[in-house]
Amino acid sequence: MNDLKYRLFASVSNDLQAVESALHENLNPFLDIVSKVAEHILFSGGKRLRPLLMILCARLCGYSGRYDKTLSTVFEYLHAATLLHDDIVDGADLRRGKPVAHAIWGSAAAVLVGDFLLARCLTIAAETENPDVVRVIAEITENMSQGEIHQLVKKRDLNLSESEYLEVIRRKTAVLIQGACRIGALIANAPAHRCQALADYGLSIGIAFQMADDLLDYVADSKDLGKNVGADLREGKLTLPVIFALKQADVPDRAEMKRILQADSISDKDFESFKDFLHKYKGISYTKELANRHVQNAKSFLSVFEPSETRQLLMEIADYALARKE
Amino acid sequence: MNDLKYRLFASVSNDLQAVESALHENLNPFLDIVSKVAEHILFSGGKRLRPLLMILCARLCGYSGRYDKTLSTVFEYLHAATLLHDDIVDGADLRRGKPVAHAIWGSAAAVLVGDFLLARCLTIAAETENPDVVRVIAEITENMSQGEIHQLVKKRDLNLSESEYLEVIRRKTAVLIQGACRIGALIANAPAHRCQALADYGLSIGIAFQMADDLLDYVADSKDLGKNVGADLREGKLTLPVIFALKQADVPDRAEMKRILQADSISDKDFESFKDFLHKYKGISYTKELANRHVQNAKSFLSVFEPSETRQLLMEIADYALARKE
Repeated sequence: MNDLKYRLFASVSNDLQAVESALHENLNPFLDIVSKVAEHILFSGGKRLRPLLMILCARLCGYSGRYDKTLSTVFEYLHAATLLHDDIVDGADLRRGKPVAHAIWGSAAAVLVGDFLLARCLTIAAETENPDVVRVIAEITENMSQGEIHQLVKKRDLNLSESEYLEVIRRKTAVLIQGACRIGALIANAPAHRCQALADYGLSIGIAFQMADDLLDYVADSKDLGKNVGADLREGKLTLPVIFALKQADVPDRAEMKRILQADSISDKDFESFKDFLHKYKGISYTKELANRHVQNAKSFLSVFEPSETRQLLMEIADYALARKE
Repeated sequence: MNDLKYRLFASVSNDLQAVESALHENLNPFLDIVSKVAEHILFSGGKRLRPLLMILCARLCGYSGRYDKTLSTVFEYLHAATLLHDDIVDGADLRRGKPVAHAIWGSAAAVLVGDFLLARCLTIAAETENPDVVRVIAEITENMSQGEIHQLVKKRDLNLSESEYLEVIRRKTAVLIQGACRIGALIANAPAHRCQALADYGLSIGIAFQMADDLLDYVADSKDLGKNVGADLREGKLTLPVIFALKQADVPDRAEMKRILQADSISDKDFESFKDFLHKYKGISYTKELANRHVQNAKSFLSVFEPSETRQLLMEIADYALARKE
């Protein structure tokens, strides 16, 4: 699977380099501290999946302009702004193996630099003078904040249903990836059915991507993950593997799972036995299967396009959503 | 002076009522908790100065459309988003006599509802399909976050100069008021010199408004102010009365002022003696005078417009910037 990652990212290395430059050039802050905080989150090994998707979707729809690299930064800045704010919300201390921004510069700076990044996105979007582009980016931002709030109010709610979980991850993760794909089609002036196909593709891989992320919290080790495994469990975030296993568990096992979920602190032994329940009651395999189904759906939406190198790359990115280890 | 406030707000009561309705109608959240947090900050006795300025500036430029009330909510939502985030940044506990949102719902909800309000502004701006409107709102948001960060990094910096102070208040406060006035002119398709005149008017009253606000922290009592007086001093925020007095003070008095500014906690006695220094070294009167000069400038920019009831109202709002007690 690492082979897939290697081939995939090698074949778009020129695009990725252009995105890196654009991320530096368009940050454009008035104060040094803003650069420092923003760069800490922006240049810490992110894979630029969102900008890359926008650029490839634009290319697939025949885009020939020169604004795609610049506009693609919106999706990385938005993502970074959300991470800055979410790390405060979650009380996280590590991200990608490094201390989070608010642990270094304080919550105040992290909140305000997040706001600055949101504002930069708006400015970059406004430059297109395309009201549809601005509208899509506005909708993404609204959805993401509401998805995060939804997740927040449902913390430690053991009755969270699978459909509510899907609604949360759609808003907090999938709409941004969907938006990147949709905007790629929009700036290429693609016809409505192609815009819709790419939006559907983006939504599906976004959902698969978040499910894979939620799985990592129970199957990865902390070194690969760059943050502490079991963080979701400790923060009281109920994800699909847990929701499914809770529903399937017999009465004594469910009681034991609930005890661990509601405990003030979770020992390594509790964490291991919790993971055993997730396997025993198929929470892990069900989530993998569902994520895989979304990946297959994503690929099927691409069938409205002729086969091409770009379409092939988008297919492989869909597979990558599941294959990643960190 | 309360008389001025009464007359002023009575004569625009229809507009203010329409703004109140629009603020409710355009909030449009998916989750109850978002309404609750947003309404806590939005409907707690704000004077709707920013929406009112936008509406009056549009009217002065002959606007005849129907989107002004809706668009004017942007300036109140942006203001509210900033307050939600700033109260976290400042560690404030009271605003307008009520506990701040983060004290009731936690910082996480306050950060995320602030983000939601920023996103709503973008959606409402996008509806105009006017790239200039979107661009101005983006610039405001960038400036505000950077002004707040600038203020944050300069906390407890006793060498803060008057020009740096002016730069901070321009960004954190004045550009929003300037933007409200400019957008009023823009949606009325006013010629460039009128847009500029109203932008200059807005910038000047914005600066006067913040200076008056900074004065209140030393001259109001806590009951009138709805928050604790001396908050700026306790938070290490150097404002113009302090900057000016520090520069004028003799060596022993300056040393005593610095001691109080750097103290971990400030007694009532220290606060009173600090205020005495501000009076003795003309920090208070200098700030009043400068604020007044900005108000007079603001009014002079209106001279490009024919006398009218609307122009008269804008003149009175400029005076009100200085007259307010809370």
